[in-house]
Amino acid sequence: MNRAFVFQKDGYTRTEGELLLNETLFHNANGYFGVRGNFEEGYPPGQATVRGQYVNGFYNFSEMKQPEKHYGFPEQKQTMVNSFDTQTMVLTVEGERVDLFQGEVLEFSRVLDMKKGITIRRFVWESPKGRQVEVCITRMASFEMLPLFTIEYQVTPLNFSGKAWMESVHSGDVSNYFNPKDSRVAGEKITHLRVAEREMTEDGFSLIRSKTLKSGLEIASVTAHLLSEEYTAKSQVGEKEIVQFFEFPLREKVPVTVTKYTVTCDSIRYLDVKGTAADLMRKSLGRPLDYWYQCQEDYLDKFWENAEIEIIGDEELNLSLHYNLYQLLQSVGKDEYCNIGAKGLSGEGYEGHYFWDTEMYIVPFFSLAWPETAKNLLSYRYQILDRARANARVMGYLKGALYPWRTINGDECSGYYPSGSAQYHINGDISYAAVQYYLITGDWDFMVSKGAEILLETARMWYDLGNFYQGSFQLHDLTGPDEYSCVVNNNYYTNLTAKHNLEWAAKIYRRLKAQGQLEDLERRIGIEEEEILGFEEAAEKMLLLYDEVLDINPQDDSFLSKKEWDFSQEAKGNGPIMQWNHLYRLYRYQVCKQADTVLAHMIFEDAQKVSTMKNSFDYYEKRTTHDSSLSRCIFGIMASKLGEKKKAYEYFDFSSKLDILNSQHNTKDGIHTANMGGTYMGIVYGFLGFRVKETGFYFMPSLPEQWERCRLRLQLLGSRLEITVTGTECMFRLIEGTPVRLFVYGREYEVEKELTVPLEEW
Amino acid sequence: MNRAFVFQKDGYTRTEGELLLNETLFHNANGYFGVRGNFEEGYPPGQATVRGQYVNGFYNFSEMKQPEKHYGFPEQKQTMVNSFDTQTMVLTVEGERVDLFQGEVLEFSRVLDMKKGITIRRFVWESPKGRQVEVCITRMASFEMLPLFTIEYQVTPLNFSGKAWMESVHSGDVSNYFNPKDSRVAGEKITHLRVAEREMTEDGFSLIRSKTLKSGLEIASVTAHLLSEEYTAKSQVGEKEIVQFFEFPLREKVPVTVTKYTVTCDSIRYLDVKGTAADLMRKSLGRPLDYWYQCQEDYLDKFWENAEIEIIGDEELNLSLHYNLYQLLQSVGKDEYCNIGAKGLSGEGYEGHYFWDTEMYIVPFFSLAWPETAKNLLSYRYQILDRARANARVMGYLKGALYPWRTINGDECSGYYPSGSAQYHINGDISYAAVQYYLITGDWDFMVSKGAEILLETARMWYDLGNFYQGSFQLHDLTGPDEYSCVVNNNYYTNLTAKHNLEWAAKIYRRLKAQGQLEDLERRIGIEEEEILGFEEAAEKMLLLYDEVLDINPQDDSFLSKKEWDFSQEAKGNGPIMQWNHLYRLYRYQVCKQADTVLAHMIFEDAQKVSTMKNSFDYYEKRTTHDSSLSRCIFGIMASKLGEKKKAYEYFDFSSKLDILNSQHNTKDGIHTANMGGTYMGIVYGFLGFRVKETGFYFMPSLPEQWERCRLRLQLLGSRLEITVTGTECMFRLIEGTPVRLFVYGREYEVEKELTVPLEEW
Repeated sequence: MNRAFVFQKDGYTRTEGELLLNETLFHNANGYFGVRGNFEEGYPPGQATVRGQYVNGFYNFSEMKQPEKHYGFPEQKQTMVNSFDTQTMVLTVEGERVDLFQGEVLEFSRVLDMKKGITIRRFVWESPKGRQVEVCITRMASFEMLPLFTIEYQVTPLNFSGKAWMESVHSGDVSNYFNPKDSRVAGEKITHLRVAEREMTEDGFSLIRSKTLKSGLEIASVTAHLLSEEYTAKSQVGEKEIVQFFEFPLREKVPVTVTKYTVTCDSIRYLDVKGTAADLMRKSLGRPLDYWYQCQEDYLDKFWENAEIEIIGDEELNLSLHYNLYQLLQSVGKDEYCNIGAKGLSGEGYEGHYFWDTEMYIVPFFSLAWPETAKNLLSYRYQILDRARANARVMGYLKGALYPWRTINGDECSGYYPSGSAQYHINGDISYAAVQYYLITGDWDFMVSKGAEILLETARMWYDLGNFYQGSFQLHDLTGPDEYSCVVNNNYYTNLTAKHNLEWAAKIYRRLKAQGQLEDLERRIGIEEEEILGFEEAAEKMLLLYDEVLDINPQDDSFLSKKEWDFSQEAKGNGPIMQWNHLYRLYRYQVCKQADTVLAHMIFEDAQKVSTMKNSFDYYEKRTTHDSSLSRCIFGIMASKLGEKKKAYEYFDFSSKLDILNSQHNTKDGIHTANMGGTYMGIVYGFLGFRVKETGFYFMPSLPEQWERCRLRLQLLGSRLEITVTGTECMFRLIEGTPVRLFVYGREYEVEKELTVPLEEW
Repeated sequence: MNRAFVFQKDGYTRTEGELLLNETLFHNANGYFGVRGNFEEGYPPGQATVRGQYVNGFYNFSEMKQPEKHYGFPEQKQTMVNSFDTQTMVLTVEGERVDLFQGEVLEFSRVLDMKKGITIRRFVWESPKGRQVEVCITRMASFEMLPLFTIEYQVTPLNFSGKAWMESVHSGDVSNYFNPKDSRVAGEKITHLRVAEREMTEDGFSLIRSKTLKSGLEIASVTAHLLSEEYTAKSQVGEKEIVQFFEFPLREKVPVTVTKYTVTCDSIRYLDVKGTAADLMRKSLGRPLDYWYQCQEDYLDKFWENAEIEIIGDEELNLSLHYNLYQLLQSVGKDEYCNIGAKGLSGEGYEGHYFWDTEMYIVPFFSLAWPETAKNLLSYRYQILDRARANARVMGYLKGALYPWRTINGDECSGYYPSGSAQYHINGDISYAAVQYYLITGDWDFMVSKGAEILLETARMWYDLGNFYQGSFQLHDLTGPDEYSCVVNNNYYTNLTAKHNLEWAAKIYRRLKAQGQLEDLERRIGIEEEEILGFEEAAEKMLLLYDEVLDINPQDDSFLSKKEWDFSQEAKGNGPIMQWNHLYRLYRYQVCKQADTVLAHMIFEDAQKVSTMKNSFDYYEKRTTHDSSLSRCIFGIMASKLGEKKKAYEYFDFSSKLDILNSQHNTKDGIHTANMGGTYMGIVYGFLGFRVKETGFYFMPSLPEQWERCRLRLQLLGSRLEITVTGTECMFRLIEGTPVRLFVYGREYEVEKELTVPLEEW
């Protein structure tokens, strides 16, 4: 087995921080649901844990009180709901409860196998009375059967025979994590669900059906158990939970397995949640577990065949990259009813909300490696377009759509406008991603059926928002990606994405018109030629700030006139500076939370001179705290572009291992999916220097000197390419499909079978 | 009696709106407490009413949840507490309850007598069974004995004799007004107080002592009754209220009087609230009621002698002016523990908070007419200076003070930063008022003991906040008075007040130093010469925006580049446009809620050319909605200055009658004290063209053609002047004190006894 597919931690640490971290790092998910990597047997009382099972897109509303009520300020948000607990399995051997917090842990390891798509927790434990057991617990969130989660609990008595007693819980009495001491998560217990029905079915399944208290949604979960040994069983149906008890004999050195199946169905996808869950459980049990394991491996084989990436010469980095891509696959929604949360399905940070992270950090990976999923992600945006239209009306626009900054169901969940809803660039981001997806895949059908409508509706919003003043088209009172400068005028990034949005809306409109494909769209949104002329004029006259003295693009119209931040004084605390500085103080300084203008330069490298990009990089790098996990990967990519190889590598290295090393100290709340996508981009857009433009695919390959070789696969216009970069050359090999035209170091080539280009320095 | 002192409404209207409005218009207050003008006998169930009794500066904390928690964002606010109910007195005659909502109201009038300082509600009512009674209820909030409130309830049976039964309630079971349907007031009932003690004392007083639930304050109220007729009495002490019953005979056409005394003491001012309240009640009862009535009239005689203002030729306006000044006197705090609320003590709007309204709209009147009170108002700011220092630390300033935008106890209560805490100009406003007070009164002692420290500490904040950039000193990310353009750079008003603040801090420092009076201050705040040099440089280089093309001062650095507001489209709704537009949409337009640059021009008329002020007036007038009650009075004053006599009169007329006519449809929530001060300024700063500068007192008198004559009195440097303007001349008469030097139309005079200057046109 290729070492890069196994992420393993050996040895047992009882510290709260380590346990919480591992709950995230070893969570199981398949894009439909996620299960935190909690110990089946639980923890002692008082031990902090985020014990959760979540379904992507399944939410309840919770209150978001405004200290002052104002028109249009949202007063409720959606929260991804911890829906039930089917993880809990407590084993007792000869009257002694298997509990790692007592007795002695002799061996311990946790494994995530990214080829097999399973996690394994294995330990050898000695009870206070000296009984030794080996336990090996394998968990899988099935990619083949999305509602299916399995726990294969194997126990082997090492030095005794006797009786075992397994208590397996199926509980609807769950709540989301809260901590009155931590201001970043909910401070009080909020009840999101009410158990509507619970029963032991004729099939011997436990079934719980719950309803959300405010959002009117329903969820059913069903569990079933298979034992490898004869047993006696009984069950106990409580108000909100069902407990099943299994008694079975243990013989020294003979393993016994209890396999617990969970099937989940929610009312967003299924009409009859209860009936469907039971049906799917029967279907799941109709095949041996090995069948589902095999399906899992087959699915992943296909995934890795497409997404494979390999770095020779840096094993740890190679592993972390695989880890990151695997997490993206685990986290990403598999239908248009959901998307990919900032924390995936691994934790409750950001309450399961979807952000611009999707389009700017994650869609690139999927567009290039797993395009059907990229299409799903963008289709989700189409599915919530009506909500974005409604949002635009609230914000005062008579036409067009404004996407919410953070959401699950399409309604705005941002309670703090300046670094939330004011980030109108989300409209530009979604449009940019739609165009990039189209240029990468050539999927014109998507553009006709969904993309064009997104582009035109978002463009309308920009046109209504902006103002022609002194010959330029200006965008006022918006926030760019940098959340330490809020509600500013003519943010460079925002204006560039808006310009792109307007240009492409017009371009696609004209293309549809020329091809006679406009009728449907005209009927739906009543777009007219005159509006298109407006878009074109606005795009052409869009104000793009430039400072001649510094030869940089100012982040916004007042950034350069702000005070300089005293990094020596201020960096004394830990964590983001916003945790010990009033936000409105930060706004008054030249201090950036994350890449903003530098990100604009990355995605629109032809919009300004190279010298401007270079100077801007230097200027903003000095002023950026990277308090956002979305920052370093972008700086890394631009460092590559600008020939700063050492920096490029350092940024890349940091962001690749961000979760594995818990570098931002908050992975306990969940993985950082955007950063994970960003590390993929670090390879492709960074070291390969890849760019997608209307005129084609561009490469400027280089290789960090720490590496021997880097190899990966991409899909371009439906053809599959394998690209290998060594210290001296870059090889392109066509694996499948028609020949691919591309530019390397600015020269055009066609890859019919293979192409080798020597590396250049710049 | 001078008609101008009697505000009267005849006839009875049962509509909810009218009743609520009159509760405000006829409230009784003395600066220490306020009692809404509710009907003693109450209303039918379900009838909206704000039944309240408030003590100035007496508050509880209530929660102000932030939808997203951020460092330094306040999460609790102070709320002026409805403290108890001693208004309730229900009369029953021969078994029929006197209730205006049944039977027939034959006569009805309400009177506010501003010479006597009382309100009278008089009615003749016929019961369903035909019994007629005349009731006359006189209420007084004593200026002489601040804790004392009296209700003299006189009943005369007109066509019968029999028995009467008075039920007099003293309740601690009260709460603040709430209305789930109205987003501008509390949406739910919040319990602020807990009754700690209630008893009938040996003296026959009812006593209730309550504690606030969160702020740790205490309040005691005591009631006592005197009857003009023999009676039998009993009392009933409940958990939270005490009811006293008085039975007495009625003889046809013979009036009987029940006088109810209330004495209130709170723990901010009194150590032993209960003992003190009982003592003061004994003291109150130790004199006949007529004694207190006489004290009230004496107090008001003195007040009117100083504050008198008279307009001959417009009776309604004359009355409304008197009404406004009387309300200011009723509302204004009489000690340094409180100030003057935006709604005075007349209602719960803005929760009893104090704003910049005090300094910019109300201190001018008191400085000129009743200077001891102006000093109290400014002393309150000194008393909360420590809280302002603490606030500055939270906002990131190492030195200096930043006053809260809205407060009772000195802590920030603004939950919405952009149009709240961001209005740093409050520092400049307080400093400006302190300097104006000093220049008007010559009260150097105040400057030495309090004013200088305020000036220096606020100046420190400006210096720390601002940035020297390209040769100018700039102030970023602040909000000026106009709350429809928030968190902008170099707001003209803010920069001018900051400049004045810095200049005067330096000036007073140097004066103190020269006079050897600096030592105390140096010890307290450790100010150094080097800081003063910084203040002077910052003041000198302060960026004051000027647009050459338009010859106006732009409101801020991006105002002119914003979109124009479509007044024709948008003014369709009623009330402030912020009620149907997202605030952040408004920020993107050239639309002003209120006077901003025009206010700057009013208070600093020498900072720019007359043509600039003229052009700016025209420019901003077209773009201002006057959604704030603080706007029109300022436009009126500047209209006078610029010779726009017709406009000046219209603005003045509107703002003078704003509450009496309920022009903003929200007087039910309380009077608009700032606008009331603004109407006074409309006369003095508007028609008289009065300005106070370091170089002296300036007048540019004019008279609206609608008036025959205008007469008023001012105190300047301790001397009292009477000024009379007719259609042709302006007469200055020295009533008391040393001769006064002043400028009229730019020419200098000394008023030794009398001075007459012919009016000029410009």
